[in-house]
Amino acid sequence: MEDKPIIQSWTIHKYENQSVTQLEDEVAVEFALTIVINGKEYATMVCSPCQLEELVIGFLASEALILTYEEIQTLQVDVGAGFAYVDLKKELLDTDWGRTKRFIGSCCGKSREFYYTQDAKTARTIVHKHQIIIEDIIHLMKAFQQQSDDFKRTGGVHQAALASKESIQYRAVDIGRHNALDKVYGYMLREHSPRRNAQIVFSGRISSEVLLKVAKIGIGFILSPSAPTDLALRLANDLNITTVGFIRNNRLNIYTHPENIIHESTS
Amino acid sequence: MEDKPIIQSWTIHKYENQSVTQLEDEVAVEFALTIVINGKEYATMVCSPCQLEELVIGFLASEALILTYEEIQTLQVDVGAGFAYVDLKKELLDTDWGRTKRFIGSCCGKSREFYYTQDAKTARTIVHKHQIIIEDIIHLMKAFQQQSDDFKRTGGVHQAALASKESIQYRAVDIGRHNALDKVYGYMLREHSPRRNAQIVFSGRISSEVLLKVAKIGIGFILSPSAPTDLALRLANDLNITTVGFIRNNRLNIYTHPENIIHESTS
Repeated sequence: MEDKPIIQSWTIHKYENQSVTQLEDEVAVEFALTIVINGKEYATMVCSPCQLEELVIGFLASEALILTYEEIQTLQVDVGAGFAYVDLKKELLDTDWGRTKRFIGSCCGKSREFYYTQDAKTARTIVHKHQIIIEDIIHLMKAFQQQSDDFKRTGGVHQAALASKESIQYRAVDIGRHNALDKVYGYMLREHSPRRNAQIVFSGRISSEVLLKVAKIGIGFILSPSAPTDLALRLANDLNITTVGFIRNNRLNIYTHPENIIHESTS
Repeated sequence: MEDKPIIQSWTIHKYENQSVTQLEDEVAVEFALTIVINGKEYATMVCSPCQLEELVIGFLASEALILTYEEIQTLQVDVGAGFAYVDLKKELLDTDWGRTKRFIGSCCGKSREFYYTQDAKTARTIVHKHQIIIEDIIHLMKAFQQQSDDFKRTGGVHQAALASKESIQYRAVDIGRHNALDKVYGYMLREHSPRRNAQIVFSGRISSEVLLKVAKIGIGFILSPSAPTDLALRLANDLNITTVGFIRNNRLNIYTHPENIIHESTS
């Protein structure tokens, strides 16, 4: 499977220093991907056309259609046509098709109905505990942000990453916040990545939906340069997820479970 | 109808200058609002609990359930309970209930299925033309951003505004990008605001969904400090919407319909 470019050139008129010049700029691509499961169309989502296999795996897990990668018999992505064909080892129940022929916007991999259906099945309280040092968090955020060339070039791509305590393990980009997280989720399922001592690093705001996605992935730390919402924080308290936001330069805010953050005072 | 606070205090541990202090900070509130139409539950959305009447009106119009404010018989918002009760003058068709009992996430007022159903009905090509001077755009963006106290305080609130060529006419805030636009839409319908010579100013990225919402509102200019996507720009070309992005300080990029932007060279 080949990826398509996730950015595309566009002719703009740039106004700067009180004069207008015509030049070629770059913008983020919105790509429509239709997922066909067991021969039947399930959903169409808007995404960045990269890491599509990871996206599909993570999406299936987010939708609670699979719990493990091994439940997938075959997965083929036809990038040219914008289709992903999935055969699962099981038949889907009628209830799994409750939301067929949906169009899923780029800003919300899945969000609607989350309290009512899929999330209730899959969001879980984090049981394994670990601690991380503040200086390691700041180091991780710097590593996360240094790599984000596409974001800087287009200003329109979100990022999510799986990180150990020391380094970024896998990084996903997408115009959709939730898609970026689903790509990380799909990677982890396929690679059987350990969740213990792992962190999710995320470029965007920590909303309740983002928090629930992290809970589904099964990781107990979310790190972001952005702000959380109150509902996300209440869920994080309940689900045992440590939330660190506004990580910028050498500053950060710990919002939940501060007992998991260690501060080694620099003498 | 009273608004609830859209920000709430939260105790954080702040790390700065190599030391940790506990203090009270503020985070954006996520509020669940269930909309009941003609006595029947239609959808639940996550939003900021302000400008809720405007939100409901704009949401109904975005869903193509109404075309004018006058189609609403009564509209009551019970902020305490998180319910909005709408009685329309008409009965809804069965097809209008196709997506009942939905939960609409904060990041997407409506997004799924947009090509297929509601948007096809309501997105329209802008027919009235006007032009705006670059210096006026830069002035509008400065006025738009100077007012955004809540955003600065919480880092988690989107903004949309209706603007004349000279000034901001109405400003909406919400944790949801689409909700902010729906609030502007609802305000305009209720107040019968003229669309001619009007601009939409928006704090976030210009995705295809945002662009389609602007087309539904019926305004031919979208101004943003952020970036557009390629699909949004192709739609903007088709729907005759002038797209100006990356408006920052005294710079901006014109992406579509540059013929509508006037540059008066400063001598």
